[in-house]
Amino acid sequence: MPDIQLLLTGNEIMSGDTVDSNSAMIAQVLGEQGLHIRRKVTLGDDPTALRVELADLAQRADVVIVNGGLGPTVDDLTAEILAAVAGVPLAEHGDARAHIETWCARRGATVNAANLKQALLPEGCRLVPNSMGSAVGFQLPVGDCLVICTPGVPGELRAMLPQVLNRMAEHLGDFAPGDVLRLQTFGLGESTAQQLITDAGIDWPASVDLGFRAGAPQMEIKLSVSDRAHAGDQQQCREALYSLFGDHIIGQGDTTLAQRVLELLAAEGSSLATAESCTGGLIASMLTRVPGSSAGFHAGFVTYSNAIKSSLLGVSEQTLETEGAVSEQVVIEMVQGALGASGSEYAVAVSGIAGPDGGGPDKPVGTVWLAWGREGDIRTRGLCWPVERTLFQTMIAAAALDMVRRMLLGLDSEPRYFAQRSQR
Amino acid sequence: MPDIQLLLTGNEIMSGDTVDSNSAMIAQVLGEQGLHIRRKVTLGDDPTALRVELADLAQRADVVIVNGGLGPTVDDLTAEILAAVAGVPLAEHGDARAHIETWCARRGATVNAANLKQALLPEGCRLVPNSMGSAVGFQLPVGDCLVICTPGVPGELRAMLPQVLNRMAEHLGDFAPGDVLRLQTFGLGESTAQQLITDAGIDWPASVDLGFRAGAPQMEIKLSVSDRAHAGDQQQCREALYSLFGDHIIGQGDTTLAQRVLELLAAEGSSLATAESCTGGLIASMLTRVPGSSAGFHAGFVTYSNAIKSSLLGVSEQTLETEGAVSEQVVIEMVQGALGASGSEYAVAVSGIAGPDGGGPDKPVGTVWLAWGREGDIRTRGLCWPVERTLFQTMIAAAALDMVRRMLLGLDSEPRYFAQRSQR
Repeated sequence: MPDIQLLLTGNEIMSGDTVDSNSAMIAQVLGEQGLHIRRKVTLGDDPTALRVELADLAQRADVVIVNGGLGPTVDDLTAEILAAVAGVPLAEHGDARAHIETWCARRGATVNAANLKQALLPEGCRLVPNSMGSAVGFQLPVGDCLVICTPGVPGELRAMLPQVLNRMAEHLGDFAPGDVLRLQTFGLGESTAQQLITDAGIDWPASVDLGFRAGAPQMEIKLSVSDRAHAGDQQQCREALYSLFGDHIIGQGDTTLAQRVLELLAAEGSSLATAESCTGGLIASMLTRVPGSSAGFHAGFVTYSNAIKSSLLGVSEQTLETEGAVSEQVVIEMVQGALGASGSEYAVAVSGIAGPDGGGPDKPVGTVWLAWGREGDIRTRGLCWPVERTLFQTMIAAAALDMVRRMLLGLDSEPRYFAQRSQR
Repeated sequence: MPDIQLLLTGNEIMSGDTVDSNSAMIAQVLGEQGLHIRRKVTLGDDPTALRVELADLAQRADVVIVNGGLGPTVDDLTAEILAAVAGVPLAEHGDARAHIETWCARRGATVNAANLKQALLPEGCRLVPNSMGSAVGFQLPVGDCLVICTPGVPGELRAMLPQVLNRMAEHLGDFAPGDVLRLQTFGLGESTAQQLITDAGIDWPASVDLGFRAGAPQMEIKLSVSDRAHAGDQQQCREALYSLFGDHIIGQGDTTLAQRVLELLAAEGSSLATAESCTGGLIASMLTRVPGSSAGFHAGFVTYSNAIKSSLLGVSEQTLETEGAVSEQVVIEMVQGALGASGSEYAVAVSGIAGPDGGGPDKPVGTVWLAWGREGDIRTRGLCWPVERTLFQTMIAAAALDMVRRMLLGLDSEPRYFAQRSQR
């Protein structure tokens, strides 16, 4: 097993202002190829400490991945540190300069001195292209160790990692590539999923590693094999998971709830309108993040006040007064109003109390009503999900999309999440 | 400044299945007292590697905080490792056992062997009470270094940190607390900010550390002093930054654009309506993420198709046909429609091409029109911002809120970002 170590740099991760998620991303991408990180060291932007540490890491490890410190400012020190450790000068790298010039030109910007600092790299280094940002990655051997420097901006790092893997493979020689199969789920907690698998008494093959990554709103299930020879076992586990909780599985890879809903709408040539109160536009935003969403989404209504619920969606003032804005009847009328005003075949509506204020004894913070459906078939559900405001908005927006997904699939089932979150 | 280092343990943080947020929590709590963490090392549950590392850390640092590995299972190794490094045996600790027995009794559970493992601690150690869980913390000096072991469960760690600070203060004696001042900005890149500061030839005091954290959409600027005695220098730097790019500064601390806009609306008792095409509900969602946003935000329109722009907002079909949906006239009519339909004093509208499809030779991907204002004072701006779809949506939604912020502040200026992003 090769010895791979990480050096993470930046005052913002030392101070706790930023939670380091980059090292988890690197570990996961490497893990999918059966590569494990042995050790991580994190330091602030202190040139002396960084130099000592990188020299030590290069002595210990076969590969060191440095993350961060590639930017244009004075606290971006990585190139300088690697040059010092490798005993080479900094020099302007022609291809790096060309990349920066192209990058600026595409934005109609002129190259300034700060940008050009990003082309000053350790002499003799090899670039690792950055398709998303100005900061190129670069690699240089230090003794027997390959040091690869990567950008701290998460999106740029993610885009660069396949290249980083290639460069590692070149340096390390052959290693048996593994494989990972990822399933996206909604409505199932990690411990519930684990319990269901245990209770089912599945004869789990030793070759398949089961992992969970609980996110909000989705949970990812990973089936990893360290050698592709075990792909059959992996498929067998996949089928076992589908039979255990298939209706909770949204799709494979990176599929999102919004993507899946848009796919299902496209399959029947329909569209969905949104009518949101407590989620405040988040459902619409989740849908429109998906490229091509205009095919299945034309109109969204964010009706945050009672007056707007009536004037835009025709919710009766009588209902609002007698039932309150957070009520089954109001979300039904919101769906009816959204169907009428948008001309869409389907609509979904939510009204709830996101908090921290606005709760009462009858309707505490976390109380929410959902309605979804089409003309003549409008369904509803009341829930109580008392969590922090933005998490509430995220989970409720996802729950709304999930109910639409289940309806489009002809499923009558509910996500397991709902079982313990019914209103009293 | 004392040398404080962290040792983070656990296979789940090495594999990336768990993102380590504990070290950020520790850093923030310490940072509030002016204490900085110099270095963090992260390792999996490997006894040999942990022993070597802890011995090395205890040599280097004044205080080492170990996080994780206090649980009841076989891969919880911290007590054993610390005992080995300190050269003492493991022994049952009476108070630890009493804590575990009380903890189990309160849950109606009987103490089992796994629980009792948590009372086996390095001989001579001092407990750090855990008010929330079964795993007690403990501390032991190794040479001149104090090693404090803390639980990996975030809630338990958080509850224990005030005690950890007390124990550190006892060990370190008096220390001069530092301070950090954070400014939130929009519309200014890191390299531009750095360049402006350099060009201004500010005589920057050595006592103030300048840091940038580029996020999307905001960039944070941090002014840190390691000793509050330098608060005067810090204020002087703050004023220098305000005079250099004050109109780009949204506020201090964690202020978001949406928060600032809502504050300014509240100050004049007004509200803002949104009319979104390419941002698809994101502006509304940014506003409604803020607690109490219902005071200044009542209605949002996501008009994704041309037909809906006409039917909901009264955008003329003629304009849509002759000018196209992405045009100055259309966003003006969207603002007018949103003002009328919502009864709000202000409205903001965006229409653009988020990509990856939908661009053309005249209007490439990234083309966007913004309009904002009130009855009789509607302003517009056309931009071209060709970046990846979700980043485009994020930046344009923020730019729209920033233009409203500037209008509410009576500023005529534009964010610097705009200068290089005008439509041809």
